[in-house]
Amino acid sequence: MAGSIPPEFSLIYKHFLPLAGAGALALGDDAAVFAPPVGRELVVAADAMVAGVHFLPDDPPDLVARKLLRTNLSDLAAMGATPLGYLLTVSVPRDTPEAWFAGFAAGLAADQAEFGLQVLGGDTTSTPGPVSLSLTILGTVSPGMALRRNGARPGDGVWVTGTIGDGALGLLAATGRLDDPDGFLAGRYRLPQPRVALGQRLAGIATAAMDISDGLVQDLGHLCRGGGLGAGIEASLVPLSSQAAAAVAADPALRARCLTGGDDYELLLAVPESREAALRAAAVACGVAVTRIGRFVSGAPQVSVRGPDGAPMALAAGGWSHFA
Amino acid sequence: MAGSIPPEFSLIYKHFLPLAGAGALALGDDAAVFAPPVGRELVVAADAMVAGVHFLPDDPPDLVARKLLRTNLSDLAAMGATPLGYLLTVSVPRDTPEAWFAGFAAGLAADQAEFGLQVLGGDTTSTPGPVSLSLTILGTVSPGMALRRNGARPGDGVWVTGTIGDGALGLLAATGRLDDPDGFLAGRYRLPQPRVALGQRLAGIATAAMDISDGLVQDLGHLCRGGGLGAGIEASLVPLSSQAAAAVAADPALRARCLTGGDDYELLLAVPESREAALRAAAVACGVAVTRIGRFVSGAPQVSVRGPDGAPMALAAGGWSHFA
Repeated sequence: MAGSIPPEFSLIYKHFLPLAGAGALALGDDAAVFAPPVGRELVVAADAMVAGVHFLPDDPPDLVARKLLRTNLSDLAAMGATPLGYLLTVSVPRDTPEAWFAGFAAGLAADQAEFGLQVLGGDTTSTPGPVSLSLTILGTVSPGMALRRNGARPGDGVWVTGTIGDGALGLLAATGRLDDPDGFLAGRYRLPQPRVALGQRLAGIATAAMDISDGLVQDLGHLCRGGGLGAGIEASLVPLSSQAAAAVAADPALRARCLTGGDDYELLLAVPESREAALRAAAVACGVAVTRIGRFVSGAPQVSVRGPDGAPMALAAGGWSHFA
Repeated sequence: MAGSIPPEFSLIYKHFLPLAGAGALALGDDAAVFAPPVGRELVVAADAMVAGVHFLPDDPPDLVARKLLRTNLSDLAAMGATPLGYLLTVSVPRDTPEAWFAGFAAGLAADQAEFGLQVLGGDTTSTPGPVSLSLTILGTVSPGMALRRNGARPGDGVWVTGTIGDGALGLLAATGRLDDPDGFLAGRYRLPQPRVALGQRLAGIATAAMDISDGLVQDLGHLCRGGGLGAGIEASLVPLSSQAAAAVAADPALRARCLTGGDDYELLLAVPESREAALRAAAVACGVAVTRIGRFVSGAPQVSVRGPDGAPMALAAGGWSHFA
């Protein structure tokens, strides 16, 4: 005779069941089933996060969960999509305390409410290594209206949302390598602000879009290769938070880190001059700052960066690479 | 000036791009975009696999990839769904040789062709720990026709596909703890056979279904709790491969391991007596063996197992638990 529910099912049911959407079948089946919204295309993306690589091993579990969900929401924002739901796999050491699961689920609950989506399914396993997380997000978009990386044209402005470099400086701050008096920079590293609402208003405005996750310069390179053109940006135009600006003033070498570091999760856009007013109106409606930092140009798919002194900036690396 | 493609993008493009479906946008965007098939519901599931937990660290990468895809295909089979596509996250040590990626992609390619689906997106990251994989699979089903875990009724037969216990014994064989002269058992551990074709024929035949991944007895407990009833099975009716039967004959203690060990990836079904002929016809059409091993009964959601000697079998554990 057998039939007791093993502990991982109890943990899943207790902490994740309250988060489940209708299609999730109470997380009690092999898969979720749902009818896709009529007349919409589906948008799907997946991101992994590993402790010690994408977040700090002692980061609070609610913030780890929210960062995982938000990095994926940022991918939806970059496509102009509306969030629908997500699936999640969680691999954690066997001695992980229940409080970790409770905190993790609380973080998911907060962001489900903020961004309007629900968990559809997933898997929880043990690992002898660091916490390893993977999330697949599903969203929808009007047919043919998804934002793409390949539409930039010569003359389009290079635009960014929010401020750039806070995530990279925030990692330094969170690891005790940079002063962060008000905790703003570490907070930006731990809790990205995906521009989901603005993304949904950019169809017909942006000719190309992506989210900045691996560093501004490297990611701008993707838009250049996608469109078969180059781009020139001015470091002095790249918007910095007052906290990042203070750090750069104290140590000018940090400017390059702002341009090439990861974890911004802001949007990078190509916008024709004729649509700048529409962009500004959409940004105001969403309460998000937008800034033009340069222009796309004909030519080889390269990114030129002019420094504050007017001379070309030499950057050691364009951005973060896992296998450099 | 920057814009070189960092190494992980080269690896992804080189090995994974040939696997990408049309909606994957050449893996060059933040997300995939596709129109869901008209008049179908979507079925989605996710599973994680960690080296040293779900597969052996030195297992060939093509078989690791195929096992990852097949465990998810088995979830679709259990829902009666038709495969559509998948997203994949791969976290590997920084010194992983390119040959590993090549082998991994070759395994995916083989099973994409065999099961008719394509990669839609994903993420590749480094990890300081063991290889950690996660796969989200998407399938479709006619509206309202998904197989569920909660429909078993008293009197329905308990049915299984294929043979049971090969995966659990195969793990012993693959780790040198059990003789496996022809390599059959280790092969069953490393390469499951998801019953996708049969699953798609079971709507209107099975009243409940799931795939057996955590051990027959434990998983039968899920169908019991789902339907609010009990089940009794006969160990002597549980189909064993000739290789598993030989192992059990040499060491009778292995019979319990066959009933409670994981990694079967066979289907577990509830089928009313009136539909047994239809079940057998569907199984013949798919070339899959089906065997009745017991019956569902009214009462508490418990699983009773009668041993070959006619006495109740005491099983130490119902199945595999990650956090016992």
